[in-house]
Amino acid sequence: MNFLLLFGVAVCAVAGALVAAPKKIDMFGVIVVAVVTALGGGTVRDVILGTKAFWVTEPVYVVIATAAGLFTFVAARFVRFSWSVMLVLDAFGLAMFAIVGCEKALSLGTSSVVIVLMGVVTGVAGGIVRDLLCDEIPLVFRRGSLYATAAFIGCLVFIALNALNAPEPTARLSGVITILVVRLAAMRWGIALPEFVVKEEN
Amino acid sequence: MNFLLLFGVAVCAVAGALVAAPKKIDMFGVIVVAVVTALGGGTVRDVILGTKAFWVTEPVYVVIATAAGLFTFVAARFVRFSWSVMLVLDAFGLAMFAIVGCEKALSLGTSSVVIVLMGVVTGVAGGIVRDLLCDEIPLVFRRGSLYATAAFIGCLVFIALNALNAPEPTARLSGVITILVVRLAAMRWGIALPEFVVKEEN
Amino acid sequence: MNFLLLFGVAVCAVAGALVAAPKKIDMFGVIVVAVVTALGGGTVRDVILGTKAFWVTEPVYVVIATAAGLFTFVAARFVRFSWSVMLVLDAFGLAMFAIVGCEKALSLGTSSVVIVLMGVVTGVAGGIVRDLLCDEIPLVFRRGSLYATAAFIGCLVFIALNALNAPEPTARLSGVITILVVRLAAMRWGIALPEFVVKEEN
Repeated sequence: MNFLLLFGVAVCAVAGALVAAPKKIDMFGVIVVAVVTALGGGTVRDVILGTKAFWVTEPVYVVIATAAGLFTFVAARFVRFSWSVMLVLDAFGLAMFAIVGCEKALSLGTSSVVIVLMGVVTGVAGGIVRDLLCDEIPLVFRRGSLYATAAFIGCLVFIALNALNAPEPTARLSGVITILVVRLAAMRWGIALPEFVVKEEN
Repeated sequence: MNFLLLFGVAVCAVAGALVAAPKKIDMFGVIVVAVVTALGGGTVRDVILGTKAFWVTEPVYVVIATAAGLFTFVAARFVRFSWSVMLVLDAFGLAMFAIVGCEKALSLGTSSVVIVLMGVVTGVAGGIVRDLLCDEIPLVFRRGSLYATAAFIGCLVFIALNALNAPEPTARLSGVITILVVRLAAMRWGIALPEFVVKEEN
Repeated sequence: MNFLLLFGVAVCAVAGALVAAPKKIDMFGVIVVAVVTALGGGTVRDVILGTKAFWVTEPVYVVIATAAGLFTFVAARFVRFSWSVMLVLDAFGLAMFAIVGCEKALSLGTSSVVIVLMGVVTGVAGGIVRDLLCDEIPLVFRRGSLYATAAFIGCLVFIALNALNAPEPTARLSGVITILVVRLAAMRWGIALPEFVVKEEN
């Protein structure tokens, strides 16, 4: 899974850099946004679990994310990135990160509630920090995304299969595929959660 | 105090969800804002103190905050929440969280300065993160709230009584009541700290 | 270096408070922004490295930052602060914090990539959090600052000299001076990194 995870980091970094595009930022800012988007979720997870960030011991992730940000900065001048391809790749990153997050929490022996929450946090926190840096209401909160919800459902599948003693690769793959399917289906058919409605004064 | 703390978590979660109401967010977003508001302060405190977040070992807090957020999402369609009642309950949560924060820092043997600071941080950080997620200038910084200031005074009372060897429950209760009184009085009579005034160029 | 570091903390706190000036915030808000700006970078660094924040064991930094914020709040009514003097002092703080960040990561035995990254994070994170609290796009991302870039180059110099077995004070001083020179030169002559340009649809 290590190679796939590196690929997920690279893809998220590219997606992060592209989100920053309309803002007037310089080369360094693009790289920062790319790195934060790619590594932010795992960092928040590790910090909450009381351990050092995963990339402190495996700096290759920093190198990959930086290179992907730099690549995007240069390539975006010559190539028009297709946003829909990016969204699919981003969904792939979301799925990978969420299940990796579950696995890390599981390996530390935390309860099911925390495992699922850490999965969702690992999947979405990078994007939240990215949107905060770019001064926007985080995408994950806007209607019609089924972004965090997809991660949530996939983490539930992972934890359920794990509780049923399914082999690790089966649980992992089922979780990843569930997230991908839910997220892509939500994008394709505009599936959305109900909106928050507050009763007005009469 | 455990039951009271759970109540404080639930109340802060409801208040958080209501703050998110005017934003166009979906069900998941409401729950996230609720959970972040209720657990954010304690999480920031634990992370700064170098320990894992308190709810990793006590996931019941996550369950309570999630349930409170979901409850608010459903109930807000049928019932009009009274904002003034919420502000009172929120003041109660602020008071509880701040003193619990002091106690945690105290139990780790840190200095008085850090104990007071951790109390204030535990009390207010959840609300700050909530306002950042909703893309607003944090309420705690706006004029006329005496929000963090109330927490600060109450933490001073707690630490002073502690230094005088007052029994733990006395110090705790005095701190909580001080915060409640200062905050509610400030709301009732519009007491405010002086505003920041900068000398203009002549 | 301890005295210099305290001076750097005080200077960054004053700069932080002045940035908050145009916002309608009260005395407490000014102190919070000052403290966050001065201690935020080191705190983020320590949390990522899995240790408690440095000021938990050395609360004198909290006292200094608070005093500097309070001083600015009072003094700003009577004295007009020269923004250009502040920018120079702020560059000094950036340089100090970045190299101290490198040294901390170095002492924990992390790899070169992480040492440089921690240096940059320690230097700039305080300002990023400050700008988030004030609801602005972080200064560090805007064009024409060479802010984080200066920290990056100085950290590279520090790590290179270290790898060449230069004595610690030489490596440290060279790093600090490099950051100062790059940052001040960039401000003086408007040196900037290339902007992010995205190919438009034809």
